[in-house]
Amino acid sequence: MVYITRRITFSAAHRLFNPTLTDSENELIYDKCNNINYHGHNYHLEVTVKGIPNPKTGYLIDLKLLKKIIHDEIFMHVDHKNLNLDVPFLTGVITSVENLIAIFWDILKDKLPSGELHKIKIWETENNMVEYFGESFEIPRYE
Amino acid sequence: MVYITRRITFSAAHRLFNPTLTDSENELIYDKCNNINYHGHNYHLEVTVKGIPNPKTGYLIDLKLLKKIIHDEIFMHVDHKNLNLDVPFLTGVITSVENLIAIFWDILKDKLPSGELHKIKIWETENNMVEYFGESFEIPRYE
Amino acid sequence: MVYITRRITFSAAHRLFNPTLTDSENELIYDKCNNINYHGHNYHLEVTVKGIPNPKTGYLIDLKLLKKIIHDEIFMHVDHKNLNLDVPFLTGVITSVENLIAIFWDILKDKLPSGELHKIKIWETENNMVEYFGESFEIPRYE
Amino acid sequence: MVYITRRITFSAAHRLFNPTLTDSENELIYDKCNNINYHGHNYHLEVTVKGIPNPKTGYLIDLKLLKKIIHDEIFMHVDHKNLNLDVPFLTGVITSVENLIAIFWDILKDKLPSGELHKIKIWETENNMVEYFGESFEIPRYE
Amino acid sequence: MVYITRRITFSAAHRLFNPTLTDSENELIYDKCNNINYHGHNYHLEVTVKGIPNPKTGYLIDLKLLKKIIHDEIFMHVDHKNLNLDVPFLTGVITSVENLIAIFWDILKDKLPSGELHKIKIWETENNMVEYFGESFEIPRYE
Amino acid sequence: MVYITRRITFSAAHRLFNPTLTDSENELIYDKCNNINYHGHNYHLEVTVKGIPNPKTGYLIDLKLLKKIIHDEIFMHVDHKNLNLDVPFLTGVITSVENLIAIFWDILKDKLPSGELHKIKIWETENNMVEYFGESFEIPRYE
Repeated sequence: MVYITRRITFSAAHRLFNPTLTDSENELIYDKCNNINYHGHNYHLEVTVKGIPNPKTGYLIDLKLLKKIIHDEIFMHVDHKNLNLDVPFLTGVITSVENLIAIFWDILKDKLPSGELHKIKIWETENNMVEYFGESFEIPRYE
Repeated sequence: MVYITRRITFSAAHRLFNPTLTDSENELIYDKCNNINYHGHNYHLEVTVKGIPNPKTGYLIDLKLLKKIIHDEIFMHVDHKNLNLDVPFLTGVITSVENLIAIFWDILKDKLPSGELHKIKIWETENNMVEYFGESFEIPRYE
Repeated sequence: MVYITRRITFSAAHRLFNPTLTDSENELIYDKCNNINYHGHNYHLEVTVKGIPNPKTGYLIDLKLLKKIIHDEIFMHVDHKNLNLDVPFLTGVITSVENLIAIFWDILKDKLPSGELHKIKIWETENNMVEYFGESFEIPRYE
Repeated sequence: MVYITRRITFSAAHRLFNPTLTDSENELIYDKCNNINYHGHNYHLEVTVKGIPNPKTGYLIDLKLLKKIIHDEIFMHVDHKNLNLDVPFLTGVITSVENLIAIFWDILKDKLPSGELHKIKIWETENNMVEYFGESFEIPRYE
Repeated sequence: MVYITRRITFSAAHRLFNPTLTDSENELIYDKCNNINYHGHNYHLEVTVKGIPNPKTGYLIDLKLLKKIIHDEIFMHVDHKNLNLDVPFLTGVITSVENLIAIFWDILKDKLPSGELHKIKIWETENNMVEYFGESFEIPRYE
Repeated sequence: MVYITRRITFSAAHRLFNPTLTDSENELIYDKCNNINYHGHNYHLEVTVKGIPNPKTGYLIDLKLLKKIIHDEIFMHVDHKNLNLDVPFLTGVITSVENLIAIFWDILKDKLPSGELHKIKIWETENNMVEYFGESFEIPRYE
């Protein structure tokens, strides 16, 4: 069993708020992340696939292919986008990294031609990071 | 002569566009940076001060003080903000890193208690970086 | 289940020695880390909390709060300190990263308002790193 | 139980190909990694050992000793070498990171004076990384 | 005057030797970099352009365009190549970073649509780096 | 003219104080850097040499040799040392990075077999950095 990882970076705007809460509740919970005009990040995304390398190729998964899958399924939908407004698969979702990572997992988990999705990691800043292994939890969509 | 640098990081949203151009001209020039709903970055800002260290202290400038100046004059106005909408000193400015860095320079250049502002550097992403030494150029403000 | 991490950095002096051993035994075991006048490091500390995000907030734990807990419980006691002389919770402890990380764990494990402490990681230099998941071991205190 | 890691870097040339396949099959599978004249990388190798620290020393393993073991068993055989031509323990192996990491594991796993080999990680580029915990798989040697 | 930089990374094999010297002279001068079967690196290349931003766009140079120029003129010729064997513009050149950087300069200096080439920087490893500002020197080609 | 740089890292303890000032003056000026029991850092030191590469070798200076000079002249005197107590060439010096860098310059400037010392850079933390080009200033020695 080997675990192989591809890293990509995307730049996006977002804000944190729950539309069912009052403005002052949102400000209390999210503080400066609640700014109504948005802020943004360079997100570093690492996708890890596990499995047995193919003896004929020495590859668990072709990293060029993994890169293309991440690009097509995630990157092109979120890079230089507003995560609250521009991304169909995030409609109504509070765009915390905890929620983002679980939704990215659901998108990627059935797209791999070999190996199995093992982990996703996202660095939101150089000090804040989240990891996810696919144990699903409730993510409400607030419309 | 010594050159001393303090690094800080801020997260902000922005978009690039010139309101005197048509939408299609803006899209042609700025491509995905033109997204009407904004995108964002973690900006790494490095401020360099030059001068002669004080023989009594061994300090050119107290870095805690330099940090406070950068925090009060720049960071608190731009961190978790929308550079196009929330920042009074950027009103009407195209928020390219070339323009940001020159405006940051003008704000900081007279605020130092010792030494002289020598350079500002901004990393917008891990691949894009800009430096400025104070040779001023025209920055139009489009209202 | 999500795993969220906050990184902080502190700068400290320390030396490695066991007062029950002779000077030559200490030098043999610890080599240059045994220098009687101390040396020091910038330690990068990463604290990981696991749990289920709150559906109302999208947060497993507010990272500003996690930062404050790490600051108050660890950072203010060790930053710009001598780990052998200045830190009450390290009295008599050999200040190896193996011991530091287990003691930090014991301090933090009951301080979290939500989620559960999952992992602590410390980079002592860019080449040396230690991780801990809370399986406790004996840490003698030599007075 | 503590997990301690030593990082080293080596620079090497390699190419990916399977001599039992045709040139066009190799090119299809390995693309630019198949270049007959080789290409190369700075590989960042992290070796993690797990175990109980010795109460007398506070050490799980002396990192200077771990460094020496990695140097003697791995580094001196691969640094500034061609992985396809110069390394006896890689003879006939497809030099994918998946295969490299499993072979490094087999070399290191019985060489530790204390603790137990837990993980090896290799960054081949800043975007491609592999991890291995010793669950062995078939690695053919093509002569 | 603003200085804007684009970073790219390429992976290549090379060896250092001067064909007019004996094998033992080459080994004495270049040591392990002289390995006849090559070694390799991930090279981090930073290209800096200086000039006055265009008031209409806020751009000194469109970084997407600068990226494309570096890609077409440098990257596609050196990435996943052997610098001694595969690169026409390096024929007969000793592939030291000192020589590489000066040759990259000559290739790029007339290709910029706006601004002026100011500096090239190459990190060959995380510890070795070279910079060049276009003051040319003799680079023999040994056939 | 080419500028070539070698990076090394050392770990040291120090404190900032001026023995001709009172304790309260020292505390006012240096704050937590004044801790009587010392603190410490991993210092990243970059030494840049400028000159014309030798056409016969393609080398401005052999980086292995530059590494050895930095090791012998600087590293072995400061690594795992207390900069205030253990380093003869720092006796009586306030160990600010401004002073350290100028003293390192004086030590290295006449030791190079080829090329000329151009710049020294020191990162004291990931946020604080100093550069020096040899324009000397007064560094008192307080005994």
